[in-house]
Amino acid sequence: MAKPDFTIARLGDMSIASPVTLSTVTGDYVANYTEDDEHILYDINATSSQTSVAFDRSQLLEKAGPRPKIHFTPAETHAGIVTCGGLCPGLNDVIRAIVMCLAYDYGVSKITGFRFGYRGLLPELGHEPVALAPHVVKDIHKLGGTILGAARGYGKHTAEMVDTLVARGVNILFAIGGDGTQRGALEISRRISERGLDIAVIGLPKTIDNDLSYVQQSFGFQTSVEKAVDAVRTAHTEAYDAINGIGLVKVMGRQAGFIAAETTMAASDVNFVLVPEVPFELDGDNGFLAHLEHRIRRRAHAVVLVSEGAGQDLLDETNKTDASGNLLLSDIGLFLKLRIGEFFRKKETEVNLKYIDPSYIIRGAPANAYDSVYCQRLGTNAVHAAMAGKTAMVISMMHNYLVHVPMAMTVSTKNRIDPDGSLWRDVITATGQPMLMINGNSR
Amino acid sequence: MAKPDFTIARLGDMSIASPVTLSTVTGDYVANYTEDDEHILYDINATSSQTSVAFDRSQLLEKAGPRPKIHFTPAETHAGIVTCGGLCPGLNDVIRAIVMCLAYDYGVSKITGFRFGYRGLLPELGHEPVALAPHVVKDIHKLGGTILGAARGYGKHTAEMVDTLVARGVNILFAIGGDGTQRGALEISRRISERGLDIAVIGLPKTIDNDLSYVQQSFGFQTSVEKAVDAVRTAHTEAYDAINGIGLVKVMGRQAGFIAAETTMAASDVNFVLVPEVPFELDGDNGFLAHLEHRIRRRAHAVVLVSEGAGQDLLDETNKTDASGNLLLSDIGLFLKLRIGEFFRKKETEVNLKYIDPSYIIRGAPANAYDSVYCQRLGTNAVHAAMAGKTAMVISMMHNYLVHVPMAMTVSTKNRIDPDGSLWRDVITATGQPMLMINGNSR
Amino acid sequence: MAKPDFTIARLGDMSIASPVTLSTVTGDYVANYTEDDEHILYDINATSSQTSVAFDRSQLLEKAGPRPKIHFTPAETHAGIVTCGGLCPGLNDVIRAIVMCLAYDYGVSKITGFRFGYRGLLPELGHEPVALAPHVVKDIHKLGGTILGAARGYGKHTAEMVDTLVARGVNILFAIGGDGTQRGALEISRRISERGLDIAVIGLPKTIDNDLSYVQQSFGFQTSVEKAVDAVRTAHTEAYDAINGIGLVKVMGRQAGFIAAETTMAASDVNFVLVPEVPFELDGDNGFLAHLEHRIRRRAHAVVLVSEGAGQDLLDETNKTDASGNLLLSDIGLFLKLRIGEFFRKKETEVNLKYIDPSYIIRGAPANAYDSVYCQRLGTNAVHAAMAGKTAMVISMMHNYLVHVPMAMTVSTKNRIDPDGSLWRDVITATGQPMLMINGNSR
Amino acid sequence: MAKPDFTIARLGDMSIASPVTLSTVTGDYVANYTEDDEHILYDINATSSQTSVAFDRSQLLEKAGPRPKIHFTPAETHAGIVTCGGLCPGLNDVIRAIVMCLAYDYGVSKITGFRFGYRGLLPELGHEPVALAPHVVKDIHKLGGTILGAARGYGKHTAEMVDTLVARGVNILFAIGGDGTQRGALEISRRISERGLDIAVIGLPKTIDNDLSYVQQSFGFQTSVEKAVDAVRTAHTEAYDAINGIGLVKVMGRQAGFIAAETTMAASDVNFVLVPEVPFELDGDNGFLAHLEHRIRRRAHAVVLVSEGAGQDLLDETNKTDASGNLLLSDIGLFLKLRIGEFFRKKETEVNLKYIDPSYIIRGAPANAYDSVYCQRLGTNAVHAAMAGKTAMVISMMHNYLVHVPMAMTVSTKNRIDPDGSLWRDVITATGQPMLMINGNSR
Repeated sequence: MAKPDFTIARLGDMSIASPVTLSTVTGDYVANYTEDDEHILYDINATSSQTSVAFDRSQLLEKAGPRPKIHFTPAETHAGIVTCGGLCPGLNDVIRAIVMCLAYDYGVSKITGFRFGYRGLLPELGHEPVALAPHVVKDIHKLGGTILGAARGYGKHTAEMVDTLVARGVNILFAIGGDGTQRGALEISRRISERGLDIAVIGLPKTIDNDLSYVQQSFGFQTSVEKAVDAVRTAHTEAYDAINGIGLVKVMGRQAGFIAAETTMAASDVNFVLVPEVPFELDGDNGFLAHLEHRIRRRAHAVVLVSEGAGQDLLDETNKTDASGNLLLSDIGLFLKLRIGEFFRKKETEVNLKYIDPSYIIRGAPANAYDSVYCQRLGTNAVHAAMAGKTAMVISMMHNYLVHVPMAMTVSTKNRIDPDGSLWRDVITATGQPMLMINGNSR
Repeated sequence: MAKPDFTIARLGDMSIASPVTLSTVTGDYVANYTEDDEHILYDINATSSQTSVAFDRSQLLEKAGPRPKIHFTPAETHAGIVTCGGLCPGLNDVIRAIVMCLAYDYGVSKITGFRFGYRGLLPELGHEPVALAPHVVKDIHKLGGTILGAARGYGKHTAEMVDTLVARGVNILFAIGGDGTQRGALEISRRISERGLDIAVIGLPKTIDNDLSYVQQSFGFQTSVEKAVDAVRTAHTEAYDAINGIGLVKVMGRQAGFIAAETTMAASDVNFVLVPEVPFELDGDNGFLAHLEHRIRRRAHAVVLVSEGAGQDLLDETNKTDASGNLLLSDIGLFLKLRIGEFFRKKETEVNLKYIDPSYIIRGAPANAYDSVYCQRLGTNAVHAAMAGKTAMVISMMHNYLVHVPMAMTVSTKNRIDPDGSLWRDVITATGQPMLMINGNSR
Repeated sequence: MAKPDFTIARLGDMSIASPVTLSTVTGDYVANYTEDDEHILYDINATSSQTSVAFDRSQLLEKAGPRPKIHFTPAETHAGIVTCGGLCPGLNDVIRAIVMCLAYDYGVSKITGFRFGYRGLLPELGHEPVALAPHVVKDIHKLGGTILGAARGYGKHTAEMVDTLVARGVNILFAIGGDGTQRGALEISRRISERGLDIAVIGLPKTIDNDLSYVQQSFGFQTSVEKAVDAVRTAHTEAYDAINGIGLVKVMGRQAGFIAAETTMAASDVNFVLVPEVPFELDGDNGFLAHLEHRIRRRAHAVVLVSEGAGQDLLDETNKTDASGNLLLSDIGLFLKLRIGEFFRKKETEVNLKYIDPSYIIRGAPANAYDSVYCQRLGTNAVHAAMAGKTAMVISMMHNYLVHVPMAMTVSTKNRIDPDGSLWRDVITATGQPMLMINGNSR
Repeated sequence: MAKPDFTIARLGDMSIASPVTLSTVTGDYVANYTEDDEHILYDINATSSQTSVAFDRSQLLEKAGPRPKIHFTPAETHAGIVTCGGLCPGLNDVIRAIVMCLAYDYGVSKITGFRFGYRGLLPELGHEPVALAPHVVKDIHKLGGTILGAARGYGKHTAEMVDTLVARGVNILFAIGGDGTQRGALEISRRISERGLDIAVIGLPKTIDNDLSYVQQSFGFQTSVEKAVDAVRTAHTEAYDAINGIGLVKVMGRQAGFIAAETTMAASDVNFVLVPEVPFELDGDNGFLAHLEHRIRRRAHAVVLVSEGAGQDLLDETNKTDASGNLLLSDIGLFLKLRIGEFFRKKETEVNLKYIDPSYIIRGAPANAYDSVYCQRLGTNAVHAAMAGKTAMVISMMHNYLVHVPMAMTVSTKNRIDPDGSLWRDVITATGQPMLMINGNSR
C-alpha cells in the first residue's frame, strides 16, 4: 500500500482576519486561536532505552498490565481495600474488579474490605472489616456508592494504620480516594519502607471533580456529567416555563470546573457557566449580572451553571476545612441566588429563579457503561501492579493508555481547566457567553 | 516545589513466575504480558519545527481549532451538510454543532442540508435539500437519527456531485459518514482540485463499529455500548431464569469487535465474547461449543455476545456487497443459534436459548452525554477547519486531542482490536473465557 | 359454560387472633383490619333510568366520550388553552392531545394558547398568546413543562377574562390546573352563563399532589413517583455508605401525602414516611426521634421521606399564602434536618445526615408512558365534551372510566390518604415504622 | 357546606350532527359514540347484607386485607412460592413482598421457593428448592426476571405436586402465573380439598398480555408499555430517516392487544396498530396495504405496531401448542414484513422496512415504579388472604380496590379489548388509521 499523504490540504492563502466571535468582551482580548504549527505525536509508545536521547525520562509513563513474574505468592497474599472521601460513581465497580481479578486471575482468596475509609484501619474506632469474595461483589456494580462505606479524615494516623496492616497480615493495600487519600497512602508506603516491610500500596485515584493531575479523566466523571445534564434540562424547563425564569444549577467542582464545562457542552441549554478557573465580576457593564439581564430582556429565560468552587473571591473567605483538610467553600449557589434576586428587585423586574443542587443525586448514582468499563480496567490493572510488587503508585489512564504513576507525581499538582485551551474555548462556543465577564480591558 | 520522584517503586525482586490464568488454553500459549520497559510519552505536544530531528513528520497530527485568519468570507459562504450510511447516535448533535458554530461564531447564514446521503447531491433522484439554521436545529440532538435522513450508495457519482455543489454555489461540504463516505469525499475533493474550484471538503468520521483508523473512538460508540449493555442484561435475565438458559446477543461490528468488547467489560454478565479479530472453532475439545457445554454443566446458564462479523470463516461466504460496497455478512447470530441448538439436542441436554439482536435500538438512540460533548466538539472544530480553508481532511480525536487527519490516512487502514493488546486482555479477564478457542497448540 | 363459583373458599374456621404487627404502637390501638363482609361492586355501569330506584342520582358520574351530536360548528369554533399553577409532568401531553383531537377529529383550525396561566387572559399584562396547530405540538410531549408557560395567580379577575374570550371570539376554554384554577374556571363559566354567552369551559384537573376529589389519580402523579424513587435510592446510598447515615428526602404533598406513600412502596428503602394526614410527635418514647434513634442503633442507617405538608403543627404557622392562595408552608425538611441534628448531638452520637429536595427535578420531568397515555385520553375526551357543549365540568377518571365531573364537585373537598384505609396500611407494612408515633394510648 | 350541584351543565341544545372522523371507513359504519345517559357509580363499596336486594351477589367482590383472626399459626406455617410461565416485569417484586410480609408482619420464618414453575414441585426433575428470607430477597426487585426461575408446563401433574406439598409440610402455596397456572392451582386446591388437607392455595395473576378477566390490569403491564414505547421511538427514527422508511414493531399480545393499544397512545408515533380483537384485510382498496401505501405516498414514512396474535386468520394455522398449552402462533411480524416487501416491489416503489421485535427486552425488564407499588400491594395482600385461610382464589385489583377473586372466575373468560369501547376509540384517534381496514360496508 502506498504511504498516505500526510500533508493537510489547503485552499490557497488564508487572507481574511478571523471574525470569530469568541472574544466578545469589551476591549481587545484576543481569542485563543490555534496555529497551524501546533501538533501532537501519533505514536507515543516508547521503551526506556529507545528514548534515552530524545526524551526526558521524566516524560515516560510506565504501562500497566500483568508482568511475566510476580512478587507475591497468591496463596500467602492478603489484600485490603479501603474507599475514602465522598461518594463517586464507580466505587463498587472498582472494588468488584479488584476482587474478581485477585480471585480468578491470581487465586488470591484472602481479601478484606476496611470500612469507612481510613477509619476502618484504626481498630479503636470499632468499624469491623468485612471479608470480600466474588460471590459478595458479584452484583454490587449495579448499585451506587460503596459497599465498604466511605468517610473523610484520619489520613494522618499512618503509623497506626501500618500497625493494623501488620497485625492483620495484609500485604497489599488498595487505597481508593482523592488527593488527601493518596497523600495518606504515600505516607503509609513511606512508613512501610522505613520499617522494611513487604507491603505494596496501590492507589486508585478517585475525584469526582476530575482534578487529579496525571489522570486524563477520573472514574465516575462521565456518569456525573450525565446526571448533571438531567439537572440542567430540568432547570431549562423551569426557566423557560416561568415569566423571566432563571434556572440556577450548582454542581461539584471545588478547584476545577470540569463537570460544569462538559455538562454545558452536553446539555446545550446553558447560557452562563461559571468555573473556579475563570474569574468573573458580578457588577459593572461587563459583569455577570449585566449579561444575565441582557439575556433576560432578549429571551425571557436563562440557565446558569456554576461550579461549587467558582467565584470564591466574591464571598467572605471562611478558612475552615473539612475532615479531609479541604477548604470549606462558602456556598456560591445560594450567594448567586441572593444577589440575582436583589439585582432584579432593584431593577423592578419580575424574575422567577429556581435553584437546583443535584450533588447527592450525581455522586450516589451507579456508574454508566463508560465508567463501568473504565473502573473494570483500573481495578484489574491495579491488581496486576500490586501482584508484581509495585508500590507507592496509582493506576491511571493517560492518552487512553493505562499507566503507573508514582503517587508523588499525582499529588504534586492539580488538574484544572486551561482558560486558554481548546476545551474552554469549545465550552464558551456552546454557551454564547462572553470570554470574560470582567470590567476593564486587561485579563 | 521539589520535583516529584519519577521512579516506580518496587518491593524487592520479582521472582515468582506468574500464575496468571489469562492463558487457559491447552498448550503453552503465553499470555500477552507487559514488560516494565514499556512506556508512553506524557507530553505529546510538538511544533513542526521543534520536532524536525526527533520525529518522523508523518508522526505529527495537526491540532484542530479556530485559526487567526480564515479563508472564506462568511457573508459569501454557503455550507452543505450530508449524512451517509447507516444511523449512528450523535448525527443530529454533529449537524447541530456545525450549524450553530457557522451561524453564531462566523455569521454564515446560508447552510443547506442534503437529504439521504450522497443521493441528495444528485438532483435527478428528486430529494429536495433543506435550509438549516439555528432555530431549525435547536432541539434535534434530543432525538436519535438524523434530520437529514441517511442512505447508502451513490458514492461514485462524484462528478455529478461536484456539479451540484457548483450549481448551488456551495463552497464548504461537510461529509458525515464512514469509510465509504470518506473515500467518496476524498474523490470529490480531488475533482474539485482538478477543476480548480474553491470548495472545502471536510469529513466527520462516523462508524458505529469504531473501525476508522486515526480516530481514537468514533462518535456514537459510547452510546452504543450503553444500549448494548441493556440487551446483555436482558439476555442474562432470560438465561438465568430458564433451565440451562443461554442468552445470545448479536451486536454491530463487521470487522472490528469494539462494541462487543467494551459491552463485555461494562455489563459483566458475558461469559463468551466472539469478535472478528479473534478466530474460534465451534467443535473439538477446545472449541466454543465444548466450553459452552462446560459452562452450562457447571452454572446452568450462559451469556454469549457476538459481533456481526465474528466467525465469518465458519459460514459460507456470500460475496455479496450492500449499496455502500460493504461485504454482506452471513448472519453469525442465527448460525450460532442453530448450531448451539443442534449441539445440545445431540447431547440430549435441554437448553433454552434466547436470541436478541438489538441493532436498531442501538443505532437509533439519541446520543448520551459523553457522545453529545464529543459531537459538539467535532462539529465546532470541523467548522473552524473549513473556514480556515482546510480540505480533504477529517476532524478526529487522538490521545484526547482534536486533530486534523488527511482523508487519505483515515481510509488507508482499518482500526481493529489487537488480540495481543491490553484491551482484549482486560476483556478476556472480564469473561473468564479461554484466550483462544481453537484446537491445537499454536495460534 | 357453567357459571363460575363466586364463593370465596376457606379452610375451616378462623380461630387464631391475628398477631399482625401493623399496630406496634404502645397501647391498644387496633389495626385497620378488613372484615369478610366488605365488598365492592364488579359491574358499575348504569344508565340514569335503570338506576332511578336503587341509587341516589348523585352517585352517578356521566361517562366521557364523543356524542352523536355536537354543539359547536367546527369551522366557527375557536378554542383556547391555558395552563395554570406549578409545573407537572404531562402538561405538554394534554395540550398536544387537545390540539390533535380538535384539528384531526373535528376539523377545528383556530386554537390559541394563552401564556402563563390566567395572566395570559389579561391583555394588560402583555403576554401575547400563541397560535397552536398539529405541527406546533407534534413533539412537545417529549419535553417536560408546558410550552405555554405556567404561573400562579390572577384567578379572581374573571370578569376581565370573559371580556378577553369575547373580544377574541373564543368559544371553548380548556383550563388546565388545580384547585384554584378550577375555582376560577367555575367562576368564569358562571359569568358566561350570566351574560348568556355561548362559551364552554372545560377543566383538566392538574395536581401533582393528587389531592383533587372525584379524580382517582391526577396526571403526572406516576411520573412524579418514578422520579421520587430515584431520589430515595440516592438517599439510601448516602445513608448506607456513611457512619450512622440518615437520608432525608422531602417531596411534594401539601395536604395529601400520596407521592410519599407510593414512593415508599415503590422504593422499598424508606424506613420512615411522614405525611400530612398522619400526625406525629418528635419527642417522647413513642416520638419520631426515639424511633429514628432505635433504627440507627440497630442498623446504623435510615431513610426518612417527608411530604412538604407533614408535621406543620410542629412548626410556627406563618399564615402566609402564595399567589395561588395556597398557604405557604414552613419547610418541614429543613426543620427536621435541624431537629435530628440537635437530637443526636445531645446524645453525642455521630450521624451523617444528607438532605435531598428533588422537587424541581420531579415536576419538570417529561411524562412517563403511563401518564402519556392518561394525558392523551384526558385531552381527547375533554375535546369531545367541549364540542358536545358541556361546560363547567372537568374531565376525570374514576374507577378507570373517563367521566365528566361538575367543577363544583371537584373543588368541594380534597382527596387525602385515609389513615385507616388499605393504602396507608400497605405503606406502613412496607416501612416497618409504627402505625402512630404519638405518645399516649389514644389516637 | 352546601351540597354540590351534580348536574352536568350544557350550552343550549345540541343540534349539529357530529362530523367526528372516527369512522373514516368506506361505507356508513357509525362510530361508537357515548350517550349522555351512560354513567358509572361513584361509591362502589358494599357489604353483603346491605346489597342483598339491589345486587346480584355474583356482582360482589370481597375486599382484600388483613383479617382480625387468622387461620394458620405463624410458628407452624411453611409457605411455598412458585413462578410459572414466561418472564414478566415485577415477578421479583411479588416474591419479595410475600416474603417480607410473611416474615415481618406474621413472623413466618419457613418460606420455600420452588424453582422453574411447577417443575420445581416434581422432585424427580431434580430442581432443588431454595430457602427464602428477608435478607435473600432484600434487593431482588431491582433486577428483572425471577430469582426462582420460570418455566412452562407440567401443570397437569397436580397429584404429585400435592404429594410434594404434604411431604415438605407446606401449608400455603403462592402460585404466580397466568391462565394455565391458575387452572393448575385450582386443580391443586381441588385435590387438597378432596384429601381434606389444610393447605391454602393463593394465586397471583401474571399475564404480560393483560388478558386475565376480573383483573383490571396485570402487574408488569405498565413496565411493558414503557419498554415498548422505546422500541416504537426507535422504529420511528429508522422510518423517518430512510427513504420511504417503514418501522414495523411486534409486541406481545396473543389474544389481547392491550400492550399495542397503550403503547400507541403513549408513543404517539404509531400510524397503524393491529391487534387480535380487530380483524383486518391486507388487500383491496380498504385493506391495510392500500392504507399503508397512501401514508407512504403522502408522508414518506410510517410506523406499524402489531400484536403477536393479530391477523392470525391471514396465516396458515399451525394448531401446535407450547408446553403451557398455548396455541403456537405463526409469526405475524415476519409475515407482514414479507407481504409489505412484495407489495411495494410490485408497485416498483423503494421502501426501507426495519423489523423490530423487542419482546425479550420488554419481559426481562425490572418493574417500574408503578408496577413496583402494585406488586408490593399484591404480594402483601396475598399473604393476608393466605394467613386468613382463604384458598382457591387470586389477589386482584378491580376499580382500584384490591380484591379476592375465586380462581374459577379468573379462568372463566379472557379479558380483551372491546372494539366498540372507549379504549379502542381513543387508540384509533391517536393513530389516524381507519376504524376498520376491511373491504365492504358491513362490519
